[in-house]
Amino acid sequence: MQKTAFAIKGNLFYSADKDHLVSLPSGYLICEDGKSAGVFERLPAGYEGIPVEDYGDSLVIPGLVDLHLHAPQYGYRALGMDLELLDWLNINTFPQEARYADLSYAEKGYRIFTEDLAKGATTRACVFATIHVPATELLMDLLEKTGLKTMVGKVNMDRNSPAYLCETDAAQSLADTEWWIADCEGRYQNTVPILTPRFTPSCSDTLMEGLGKLQKRTGLPVQSHLSENRSEVAWVKELCPETGCYGESYDRFGLFGGDGCPAVMAHCVYSAGEELDLIERRGVFIAHCPQSNTNLASGVAPVRTFLDRGLRVGLGTDVAGGFSASIFRAMCDAVQASKLRWRLSDDSLKPLSMQEAFYLGTLGGGAFFGKVGSFEKDYEFDAVVLDDSGLRSPMELTPEQRLERVIYLSEESAVAAKYVAGCKIKG
Amino acid sequence: MQKTAFAIKGNLFYSADKDHLVSLPSGYLICEDGKSAGVFERLPAGYEGIPVEDYGDSLVIPGLVDLHLHAPQYGYRALGMDLELLDWLNINTFPQEARYADLSYAEKGYRIFTEDLAKGATTRACVFATIHVPATELLMDLLEKTGLKTMVGKVNMDRNSPAYLCETDAAQSLADTEWWIADCEGRYQNTVPILTPRFTPSCSDTLMEGLGKLQKRTGLPVQSHLSENRSEVAWVKELCPETGCYGESYDRFGLFGGDGCPAVMAHCVYSAGEELDLIERRGVFIAHCPQSNTNLASGVAPVRTFLDRGLRVGLGTDVAGGFSASIFRAMCDAVQASKLRWRLSDDSLKPLSMQEAFYLGTLGGGAFFGKVGSFEKDYEFDAVVLDDSGLRSPMELTPEQRLERVIYLSEESAVAAKYVAGCKIKG
Repeated sequence: MQKTAFAIKGNLFYSADKDHLVSLPSGYLICEDGKSAGVFERLPAGYEGIPVEDYGDSLVIPGLVDLHLHAPQYGYRALGMDLELLDWLNINTFPQEARYADLSYAEKGYRIFTEDLAKGATTRACVFATIHVPATELLMDLLEKTGLKTMVGKVNMDRNSPAYLCETDAAQSLADTEWWIADCEGRYQNTVPILTPRFTPSCSDTLMEGLGKLQKRTGLPVQSHLSENRSEVAWVKELCPETGCYGESYDRFGLFGGDGCPAVMAHCVYSAGEELDLIERRGVFIAHCPQSNTNLASGVAPVRTFLDRGLRVGLGTDVAGGFSASIFRAMCDAVQASKLRWRLSDDSLKPLSMQEAFYLGTLGGGAFFGKVGSFEKDYEFDAVVLDDSGLRSPMELTPEQRLERVIYLSEESAVAAKYVAGCKIKG
Repeated sequence: MQKTAFAIKGNLFYSADKDHLVSLPSGYLICEDGKSAGVFERLPAGYEGIPVEDYGDSLVIPGLVDLHLHAPQYGYRALGMDLELLDWLNINTFPQEARYADLSYAEKGYRIFTEDLAKGATTRACVFATIHVPATELLMDLLEKTGLKTMVGKVNMDRNSPAYLCETDAAQSLADTEWWIADCEGRYQNTVPILTPRFTPSCSDTLMEGLGKLQKRTGLPVQSHLSENRSEVAWVKELCPETGCYGESYDRFGLFGGDGCPAVMAHCVYSAGEELDLIERRGVFIAHCPQSNTNLASGVAPVRTFLDRGLRVGLGTDVAGGFSASIFRAMCDAVQASKLRWRLSDDSLKPLSMQEAFYLGTLGGGAFFGKVGSFEKDYEFDAVVLDDSGLRSPMELTPEQRLERVIYLSEESAVAAKYVAGCKIKG
């Protein structure tokens, strides 16, 4: 079969690694069968005559990756931010999530969510739904149509949850989950189910054990929360006195990475010592969610430590602990939070640079989806074209400076086009 | 002479004080000769038949007040954020400000700045220009035309500054300042000169003394910087060994508030003890600039202390230490920074609520301009109409909830109309 190739032209940027940003002004980025064939100053031999979409002076970057957000919480983002995690869940979150038992409400909420997500610079996301299978499938149907590549989780919770948002028992929770996974099979090109125990406090051992077995059988990825807030960490210690750290409460059931179990854990604000060792050993991804951790006054995760140890880290918006669904904003928040952490509590950890934050929001998180988040050869062709003409300046700015401004001031620039795995889904 | 009156109708909000947000859904706000005649559920006797602009379901709030920003820095906001204050000044700021000696460059930069400021929700601002009189007057001319009410300062700096951005000596700096003030006389309706010693390190005692005398003679207000960064505070201590605190380095020359000397000092991150006493005694306004203080890793000012002591506080964007020129963003940043301060370094100071931040960005800062920042009777009629229809939700939201969302997500809503002192300048 003949390969189909095209190129887009613009000021190209991507992270080679956390310390190196590659920049190619007026460069060509070639797509071949949904993957990058590399970036070039001019079209190389063998590609002469392929279609070229010329984006002029625009900036072109890899699609942004959101490793953690809650779709049903999108409707009340930016509301009731004066609470810490456990109160915030009980007062703001659980009553809202319960409404997703009603499919017509779910359709309203999820339609707004998917439309807005599709408009922004995100191309990949790990998404929590609710415990409700029909609404979760509706969300998957809507996301599928956007062309975004997402992992979506029907949430499991069978204890310590309000009666109106608690599965009957582990058996029902597992049966629903198995039914859902079977029902998803063969149904989606862009959308993958991901096992989603909400967090240890809301999942019984029996449920965790069943999910662990299901993971082993299906090979599905796992997402959950870890060491976000002090009261939560203390609660887990009470609930699982026999585990050495919060992470172990997932690990003992095979839900914490390792061979054949891709796992992403949100927050890790208080992960340290043996928990970080375990994260490293198991190759668990960390979804750093700086805005949520600020809004809920959880704290600031030691991302510098994560990077220095070579852990796998990306960014999450954590809507609606975070009010913004923008990973650009998450990059900016990550840098800012690291500065205040350095200034206010621990000057041994140097603040993050914007280059590092850019890495986190593209290649760092992208790795959870495979070869994603870079323009290097063989990476999936996810690209975002940014029109920053609204960001005027009397200065002559280099493309690098313009990129920095776009990240900080993303709300003033526009996503002019967006490609996911070689398909143009916007622009 | 007959009074001219009109009303606008919408969901009205304003702060009665820092603890009380007044809300009047579908209310009437009456303007009479540029001032508020109050808010009403229906048009009261004596006002029947006046023109009413009906903004339907929109939110209407007092114009926002920016107590501290640097117009010449607007062109490079969001660039080079990886430095602390003193390096940031030398590397990023001073070379840029020097370019404002060139009027054609100044025109480019200041035109962009004024156009963007006019578009947003700000109605009043205290603005630093540069040392250059012609460019400062150009800025004032441009601001005057927008209809915004601003105080603009030609900056004074005669020491510890690079040769390319340093006035020859105190005599020249003072002569230029006097010439500038005389030249402004009778020229503006909306624009007021404000004395602007950059900060103690860049102003000799002779210059400060001269400015103090000039202040006494003219009664002009004063703006400057105070206790922003640890190295800066240490430097002032070295430069002025005889003063008990940084604030005293202004106060001893009559440039720190008190009778007939309205003064606003930006930052006050490290103001404490006798400096706070002096601020209180002199009625000095504090411009809290949370984003700048985060970007330059300066720290977080103890705003809770300021409020508890009844000090006068408002918000500043401090463009370009801050990258955003939005006071909505400053409200959000103020809440967030206070949460991290509480969590990371001092849990004796309760985080700010959004209601308090709204007060700071309206009435708190507005008081520096007189009766400004409220819809109560006799306040100047500054009003902003906000269209939040882009912020969709499946929930039914109260007007209060919509206001909270608009503040956090201001970049996704729009300023539909803006009034300053009774004049409609936008919409």
